Amino acid sequence: MEKIAVCLLSGGMDSAVASAIAKEEGYKLHAITFDYGQRNKKEMESARQIAEWLKAVHKILKADLRQIGGSALTDEIEVPEEGRGIPPTYVPARNTIFLSYALAYAEVIEAEAIFIGVNSVDYSGYPDCRPEYIEAFQKLANLATKRGVEGYPVKIKAPLLYLSKVEIVKKGVELGVPFEKTWSCYRESEKACGRCDSCRLRMKAFEEAGIEDPIEYE
Amino acid sequence: MEKIAVCLLSGGMDSAVASAIAKEEGYKLHAITFDYGQRNKKEMESARQIAEWLKAVHKILKADLRQIGGSALTDEIEVPEEGRGIPPTYVPARNTIFLSYALAYAEVIEAEAIFIGVNSVDYSGYPDCRPEYIEAFQKLANLATKRGVEGYPVKIKAPLLYLSKVEIVKKGVELGVPFEKTWSCYRESEKACGRCDSCRLRMKAFEEAGIEDPIEYE
Repeated sequence: MEKIAVCLLSGGMDSAVASAIAKEEGYKLHAITFDYGQRNKKEMESARQIAEWLKAVHKILKADLRQIGGSALTDEIEVPEEGRGIPPTYVPARNTIFLSYALAYAEVIEAEAIFIGVNSVDYSGYPDCRPEYIEAFQKLANLATKRGVEGYPVKIKAPLLYLSKVEIVKKGVELGVPFEKTWSCYRESEKACGRCDSCRLRMKAFEEAGIEDPIEYE
Repeated sequence: MEKIAVCLLSGGMDSAVASAIAKEEGYKLHAITFDYGQRNKKEMESARQIAEWLKAVHKILKADLRQIGGSALTDEIEVPEEGRGIPPTYVPARNTIFLSYALAYAEVIEAEAIFIGVNSVDYSGYPDCRPEYIEAFQKLANLATKRGVEGYPVKIKAPLLYLSKVEIVKKGVELGVPFEKTWSCYRESEKACGRCDSCRLRMKAFEEAGIEDPIEYE
């Protein structure tokens, strides 16, 4: 029987690589992208193109987090260029909300796994990108669903959890991920800004990997 | 300083009593009701009236679970009159999705607690109404959020968890809960059907409590 996985696909680099790993592992992919009211709409178009490359069933789910507020990614709060601690681009409980929808969807389509591109090494300080968080979500998933109760819970897979950004870039190149289609910048402009946290992490990773980043920067 | 709690208010009996308990404990309430594409719209009007009675700030959040499907409460699947095991009215991962939004909202408004009216005694066989599920969500909340990381995680409170339906009715009467404003029926008609699982549990509870149910049945 065909193995199915739900993958969370944001349009960024990490979720593209995580999904490519899922595909390599032989899963038939159902990709979910959230239209959560993000100021940056380019992400969604990137996600569409990556889903096409992955030959995934692609589902765009509306889950408007502007109703909740509290983040620079959804509200009119300035995206910072540098900082410490949990940054204002943190969207409260975003991964928990996204994984919850993925869990529901996995239950409906009878998927065996959910792939999420979180990574705890070169990360931005978000609490919901840590290994202990993923473990806690796995435990919740085991208890929350019909599948879990019946003894075959969906597996939460975060294949990038312990990889550095450089390793993620290398893995992506190895799997042929079309990085030119990915979008990492927190801002929305023709070219990536090259200054926000997300751009900086990406540029540094490509540089250290000795690979040319195919996207253009301002 | 004022203690704030987020309470999940569905319009049904249990969430009304759980919220009344939160109020009695001295919390200033922010009630959340989900417009999740439920076929039954009466619930939402009930929730509005109960929020008014609670003097709660009331927020209706759109989180359309029809995008996910898989339940008789959102899809055109027949609501059964009796059955065993996990019934078709189970909405995949619904409480997980609802609690995730509540967690995000609690983080934004700096609430100390989230109240949910789940109950594991006279329940309908939903996996996400069990004590171990609530415990697992608490552990997730401790790890998922800024508040959690900073050492003062929001408390997930389920005051009805170990009460029977009869005890819930009695507690509600004691707190003056306006049961005439609550709506429990899975169907949407002028009067409650009196035949679905939810009506049956409610009718039995009032009968055993020796209290007249103020709503009308067909």
